[in-house]
Amino acid sequence: MVRQIKGRSKKSGLPPGTPVHVGDRKTEIIKISLIDYDKESFEMRVTQTVEECFAYKGKPTVTWINVDGLHEVSSVEQLGNCFGLHPLTIEDILNTEQRPKLDVFDTYIFIVVKMHTWNEKTKEITGEQMSLILGDNFVITFQEKEGDIFDEVRNRIKNNKGRIRKSGADYLAYSLMDALVDNYFRVLESIGEDIEEMDEELIKNPTPRTLHKIHFLKREMIFLRKTVWPIREVISRLVREETGLIKDSTKIYLRDIYDHIIQIIDTVETYRDVISGMLDVYLSSISNRMNAVMKVLTIFAAIFIPLTFIVGLYGMNFNTEKSPYNMPELNWYYGYPVALGLMLFVSLIMLFLFKKKKWF
Amino acid sequence: MVRQIKGRSKKSGLPPGTPVHVGDRKTEIIKISLIDYDKESFEMRVTQTVEECFAYKGKPTVTWINVDGLHEVSSVEQLGNCFGLHPLTIEDILNTEQRPKLDVFDTYIFIVVKMHTWNEKTKEITGEQMSLILGDNFVITFQEKEGDIFDEVRNRIKNNKGRIRKSGADYLAYSLMDALVDNYFRVLESIGEDIEEMDEELIKNPTPRTLHKIHFLKREMIFLRKTVWPIREVISRLVREETGLIKDSTKIYLRDIYDHIIQIIDTVETYRDVISGMLDVYLSSISNRMNAVMKVLTIFAAIFIPLTFIVGLYGMNFNTEKSPYNMPELNWYYGYPVALGLMLFVSLIMLFLFKKKKWF
Amino acid sequence: MVRQIKGRSKKSGLPPGTPVHVGDRKTEIIKISLIDYDKESFEMRVTQTVEECFAYKGKPTVTWINVDGLHEVSSVEQLGNCFGLHPLTIEDILNTEQRPKLDVFDTYIFIVVKMHTWNEKTKEITGEQMSLILGDNFVITFQEKEGDIFDEVRNRIKNNKGRIRKSGADYLAYSLMDALVDNYFRVLESIGEDIEEMDEELIKNPTPRTLHKIHFLKREMIFLRKTVWPIREVISRLVREETGLIKDSTKIYLRDIYDHIIQIIDTVETYRDVISGMLDVYLSSISNRMNAVMKVLTIFAAIFIPLTFIVGLYGMNFNTEKSPYNMPELNWYYGYPVALGLMLFVSLIMLFLFKKKKWF
Amino acid sequence: MVRQIKGRSKKSGLPPGTPVHVGDRKTEIIKISLIDYDKESFEMRVTQTVEECFAYKGKPTVTWINVDGLHEVSSVEQLGNCFGLHPLTIEDILNTEQRPKLDVFDTYIFIVVKMHTWNEKTKEITGEQMSLILGDNFVITFQEKEGDIFDEVRNRIKNNKGRIRKSGADYLAYSLMDALVDNYFRVLESIGEDIEEMDEELIKNPTPRTLHKIHFLKREMIFLRKTVWPIREVISRLVREETGLIKDSTKIYLRDIYDHIIQIIDTVETYRDVISGMLDVYLSSISNRMNAVMKVLTIFAAIFIPLTFIVGLYGMNFNTEKSPYNMPELNWYYGYPVALGLMLFVSLIMLFLFKKKKWF
Amino acid sequence: MVRQIKGRSKKSGLPPGTPVHVGDRKTEIIKISLIDYDKESFEMRVTQTVEECFAYKGKPTVTWINVDGLHEVSSVEQLGNCFGLHPLTIEDILNTEQRPKLDVFDTYIFIVVKMHTWNEKTKEITGEQMSLILGDNFVITFQEKEGDIFDEVRNRIKNNKGRIRKSGADYLAYSLMDALVDNYFRVLESIGEDIEEMDEELIKNPTPRTLHKIHFLKREMIFLRKTVWPIREVISRLVREETGLIKDSTKIYLRDIYDHIIQIIDTVETYRDVISGMLDVYLSSISNRMNAVMKVLTIFAAIFIPLTFIVGLYGMNFNTEKSPYNMPELNWYYGYPVALGLMLFVSLIMLFLFKKKKWF
Repeated sequence: MVRQIKGRSKKSGLPPGTPVHVGDRKTEIIKISLIDYDKESFEMRVTQTVEECFAYKGKPTVTWINVDGLHEVSSVEQLGNCFGLHPLTIEDILNTEQRPKLDVFDTYIFIVVKMHTWNEKTKEITGEQMSLILGDNFVITFQEKEGDIFDEVRNRIKNNKGRIRKSGADYLAYSLMDALVDNYFRVLESIGEDIEEMDEELIKNPTPRTLHKIHFLKREMIFLRKTVWPIREVISRLVREETGLIKDSTKIYLRDIYDHIIQIIDTVETYRDVISGMLDVYLSSISNRMNAVMKVLTIFAAIFIPLTFIVGLYGMNFNTEKSPYNMPELNWYYGYPVALGLMLFVSLIMLFLFKKKKWF
Repeated sequence: MVRQIKGRSKKSGLPPGTPVHVGDRKTEIIKISLIDYDKESFEMRVTQTVEECFAYKGKPTVTWINVDGLHEVSSVEQLGNCFGLHPLTIEDILNTEQRPKLDVFDTYIFIVVKMHTWNEKTKEITGEQMSLILGDNFVITFQEKEGDIFDEVRNRIKNNKGRIRKSGADYLAYSLMDALVDNYFRVLESIGEDIEEMDEELIKNPTPRTLHKIHFLKREMIFLRKTVWPIREVISRLVREETGLIKDSTKIYLRDIYDHIIQIIDTVETYRDVISGMLDVYLSSISNRMNAVMKVLTIFAAIFIPLTFIVGLYGMNFNTEKSPYNMPELNWYYGYPVALGLMLFVSLIMLFLFKKKKWF
Repeated sequence: MVRQIKGRSKKSGLPPGTPVHVGDRKTEIIKISLIDYDKESFEMRVTQTVEECFAYKGKPTVTWINVDGLHEVSSVEQLGNCFGLHPLTIEDILNTEQRPKLDVFDTYIFIVVKMHTWNEKTKEITGEQMSLILGDNFVITFQEKEGDIFDEVRNRIKNNKGRIRKSGADYLAYSLMDALVDNYFRVLESIGEDIEEMDEELIKNPTPRTLHKIHFLKREMIFLRKTVWPIREVISRLVREETGLIKDSTKIYLRDIYDHIIQIIDTVETYRDVISGMLDVYLSSISNRMNAVMKVLTIFAAIFIPLTFIVGLYGMNFNTEKSPYNMPELNWYYGYPVALGLMLFVSLIMLFLFKKKKWF
Repeated sequence: MVRQIKGRSKKSGLPPGTPVHVGDRKTEIIKISLIDYDKESFEMRVTQTVEECFAYKGKPTVTWINVDGLHEVSSVEQLGNCFGLHPLTIEDILNTEQRPKLDVFDTYIFIVVKMHTWNEKTKEITGEQMSLILGDNFVITFQEKEGDIFDEVRNRIKNNKGRIRKSGADYLAYSLMDALVDNYFRVLESIGEDIEEMDEELIKNPTPRTLHKIHFLKREMIFLRKTVWPIREVISRLVREETGLIKDSTKIYLRDIYDHIIQIIDTVETYRDVISGMLDVYLSSISNRMNAVMKVLTIFAAIFIPLTFIVGLYGMNFNTEKSPYNMPELNWYYGYPVALGLMLFVSLIMLFLFKKKKWF
Repeated sequence: MVRQIKGRSKKSGLPPGTPVHVGDRKTEIIKISLIDYDKESFEMRVTQTVEECFAYKGKPTVTWINVDGLHEVSSVEQLGNCFGLHPLTIEDILNTEQRPKLDVFDTYIFIVVKMHTWNEKTKEITGEQMSLILGDNFVITFQEKEGDIFDEVRNRIKNNKGRIRKSGADYLAYSLMDALVDNYFRVLESIGEDIEEMDEELIKNPTPRTLHKIHFLKREMIFLRKTVWPIREVISRLVREETGLIKDSTKIYLRDIYDHIIQIIDTVETYRDVISGMLDVYLSSISNRMNAVMKVLTIFAAIFIPLTFIVGLYGMNFNTEKSPYNMPELNWYYGYPVALGLMLFVSLIMLFLFKKKKWF
């Protein structure tokens, strides 16, 4: 995830507004799903050609066109031209390395955000880009690959649950953003569980692998944070928008999302703090352990070094026969027991001193 | 306390405004206490059904309905509908994973805050959510379980102490917020005592357990901070509120709470700084100790290693009879005393050198 | 100094505006000193009862009432009522755990600040709270115990030095604030001297005690900083005040205090940076020293361990008589000198290698 | 890259507005390339004298004069005078130690930015300064040496690709800025690859050289960050510019650059965080390794020190003939096997203890 | 440089506006140099009495009075009174412990800044205070001691170079500020060279002295930063000044200084970052080295400890004659060579293991 902006170089030198697909190709075929509804009617179809969508332009019913897969540049371009999108907007839709942002044009609002999912196995966050166009009676969404976070919204429209069928395109756009933001709660919940696990591991049995996992998670949070902060701005600007594309009654709901995104940011920041704290805990536990190892070594050395000296002393070969001054101890009657006693005494003194210093 | 937003996933996919209880069930039965008063009259009743409350709607007297326990979704919904609450408000009341916030609606102000208590035994902060609705002549509060921090307010109303009976619903809301903020002082006072204890422990006898406690407290402060900051914003917006629901005379009192919350934030930040400092103290005391252990080891090794070499030297078995060059010292008359003297001399030199380097 | 807000709990549950003394009782008896002056006249009296002050209310001359000692709640309350103070103001005066703040009421300005003194012996900052009421023609100050930082102002009034006798109550309030801020310069000067001392100690002979002193000072700075920042805000708001209680000519002087307080904050922040730097110096000097100890140990071990091995080798008891392969060196004519030479050679090689690695 | 502002001293003392070339001479000869175009016509010429440019002043077509090489002070001065530049502007063009900035004058906008390239071999960022003057119908650019990042723009004009030939000087200026900002994406992409490489190295085989490279890259990011932040400000002010020199249709495109520069800043900040994290990983891997080394040492010492003591013990020379108490073990029938067994037992005990402590 | 505000205490207790000289006396005699000029005329004189200056008050020509030395309080006071300075201004001129600031009075602008010079030998930054009064037709500057950074300005006036003789007092004030700011570039250039030197030292041969120098420089940067930031504010306010004392044509030049000061701040911040990075490099190089030392020790110990055990083993004195089980190896025909071979084998195994662990 480090190489943030790979693939950008493909574009350098081209005139601005040139549609080029930047990013990995995440799906094989492009899939277009079209939903058209109002209070009474409901229509849903899946297609692979954009031409079918053109008929829905200008209809008084609410139309939601969802495009999965961005590699067919010409399809996106045709759709964009039909619905009157600015060349820069089409360029931005195709470039999946965008930063979340909101652009207001005369006839539509253009939103780019990131959708993240948490891979339970690799413990990785993977993301894809979602672009949303909110026009007068239509919403167009572009995703890099098929996903399921909008399924609930689809069901609500189909089954006429909640306010959605009674409201306009702005409420649909709100519902999609709400599903997207809710999804972040799910991601954070999974990460929270992961942090708890690591926390336990940290206390019970910290290994260098634990450290590695903490560092990895820390980096994930850097990237998550980088994605979530600009979404806050996007929604804040949506709430304050005055183009007439968003009704006041919908803005109350947008304020609700705003509260959610603030809570998400809060949680991300808290997780960062908690993870930093875990790194500190790890490092000080290493320090503690090293200290313990050092003490064991020192106790061993300090007890046995004098003893080894004494036994070495009486292993010297001075000629006791040549002189009464040469190691007379060797010929004493109780020489050996006295030497053993001396060594025992030295050891006890040492142990006593270490005990006093609270080394064990 | 890490898994900040558990239970949220229960809600994802539902249309906004759907009332769902999110959070742990902290009490068995729902309890509704109802207080109705004005300058002269006072009435208080405890019930378990919401229907009794409906009669108090629109009465000119001040009505305070307090609901303990949120798991009976339908009761909350009925009460909300009766007093004209927006579906999003009802949803937020039931979701106990809210961030403290203030929402202003046409006919009422909706406040969500957290109430914290400090568990003396586990040294843990536990929190619950409190929602407060301030309407024209009524205040409705929702708590997750029965508590006692509002008892003093109840007594003041009952015994007609202070201004409370003479003032309107806004003053009642203020009094409840004041009790809640005062409670934070109590929590911080307990934590302060705990910090002092740890501080002493840190100087007298720091153990890895001390470190563990410091880290734990540090994390508690992260969470406390996260809760207290948004309360500042809530009260700041209350003071600047211009709906007419809050009288100017009450705003002077709200400014007073604002000062208190700033003081609480100040104290939380100071505690964080102090705790960080304690971690530094711990780590440098570990360093100091390790240094001391290293020195003892080095002094021992450096003194005895040369001595051990000397005794080993004279333990060699070169054949002194074959040649006058082979270890003639062994046959000297004063060989042994000279060797002992040499060793003493070497030790003293070493001790002198270490003394000079200020190693002990 | 950790338990910031002890004693607060005494108040919880009481209706707001209830006068309760919070804090330690720092003086035995309450002392009221009263100064009344204008261009020509001057009167000064010391009393212990508040009733004498009532007569001065509404006089056209400037009246300064200074109260030392806050434990007699009723006296403070009577004085407050006489001069028309709001119950919350009286409550705040009595609560010595306030954060510095400024409240503007219709007829007076209420200022709470902290006065700090530096105890040269314990190297501790001790503080007390000062409240100041600036009314139309009067200034009332409340201190926790008798102090002398206002003596100079008293003398200036008495001896008619400077502008003070020719100016109104606002200039008197300014003069008192100025004396208070000047006092912070004195405190910082003492701390600066202390830092210099520690700095020298750090370079010449750093001990764990030095570290302890640095940590202590660091914490003192946390608290000083916490007190000084809000004073900046108090004075900034005084300068921008538009109640008419403060004349424009006095505001030039207040701007001067503002510059001073900015300088004090600057100095506190710089001290914090310097103290942090000192901690870094200490820790890296510990590291350096440990490294040096390690090297001595390693050099000793690395030189003597091979030598000890050699002497051990020739201390083995293989039977040289049974076989010509068993330690023939022991029977060589120059066996011993050769062995000594070998050991000398090994030592020199080692020393040469360490020299090359720049270990000493 | 540390000596940020070398060469500045050349200028001190001179009156402001004196044209002096500050910086290294990066090219031998000055090269002036001149492009003049409108919807239909296109002219391009390369020259070394400025006089040829004078004729293009005031022409209704768009004129782009690009100067490579700044050491011929008089040429720059003549050009500046011809197009009515302020003396301070000319001074700033010649001083290559500028901070990126935007100055608005009555008849032109003056922009200074930095162009960076990443040297794949030395892993260094090298930069040069680019000045851009946007006048009514002309754009003048100054570079320190010939480069190729504007080649694509030249080609687009030549081949009449995109909107450029149909638009005015402001769109040309935008295109140049766009090329410059795009170039930063290329630089960041290269750095991203480098970080990934180092990341792998860090996990597989961290050496002090890795650390050195991380520190080097960290410093590169400090400088990159310092350059990129002010560019954001430059473009932000361009978007809000109201001189009429920039048309509204061009501002949409400038907002697009603004998004890009925000993304670049975001990436730079993320890289900084990632690099900091890598330093932490390195340091804790050093700690882990040291800990492992310590353990090996301690295990060895702790196992063999007691054994060595035992063998030393039975190497003592107490006279077994003089007394039955002197080392009777030496004369036991199974003395040696028992001693060996004892040593084996001690070793096993030790190993068992270390195993239990999870030391290996 | 720690004791920031020494000497302040001299002032406490005095009425505000009392002129007292605070700071060290840096010159023996006070020196007043007076320059008076307009487009045609030029006059310059050096004097030691202020009375000569009075005649120049109110002249239509531009008068620049420069005072070196502040200890003669009365001279400064007389000069101030003559030119109508507020008592607080005179007090501030004499107090050399000021923070850089700008005060606007009705008839003049008062600026206090710091002039710094870098002492090449002691590697210390020394500073002095400069006060500047800009009036209608006059500029008065006060310095603590004679300096030469204004010499160039003097020469320009004398030799009628640049715009200075044609412009008013505001342009003179600008020129002086410009000279002062330019001087900071010189200081930073010197520090930059110093950092480069240290950087090289750090890579080639880091010693504790290097560390000491880095810490020293770090502290110097703390103080430089503290001085430079408020100058930014001073100049920013000068640019926005609307008293009419500064002409719009001069403001273009002031904006230029503003850019310079921003660049200086940028450089100071970058240097701080670089120096912090150097500290990290130093500490990790210490860690690396310690690790290397540890490894050498461990390798030595781990190889020789088993060998020493073996030679000790065969140095035991078990009686081989009493039992065939007692050390039969000693009597083997190839006992000694086998023992030597065993030791060689053990060493090789050890070396192989360490090689595998990449310890050397």
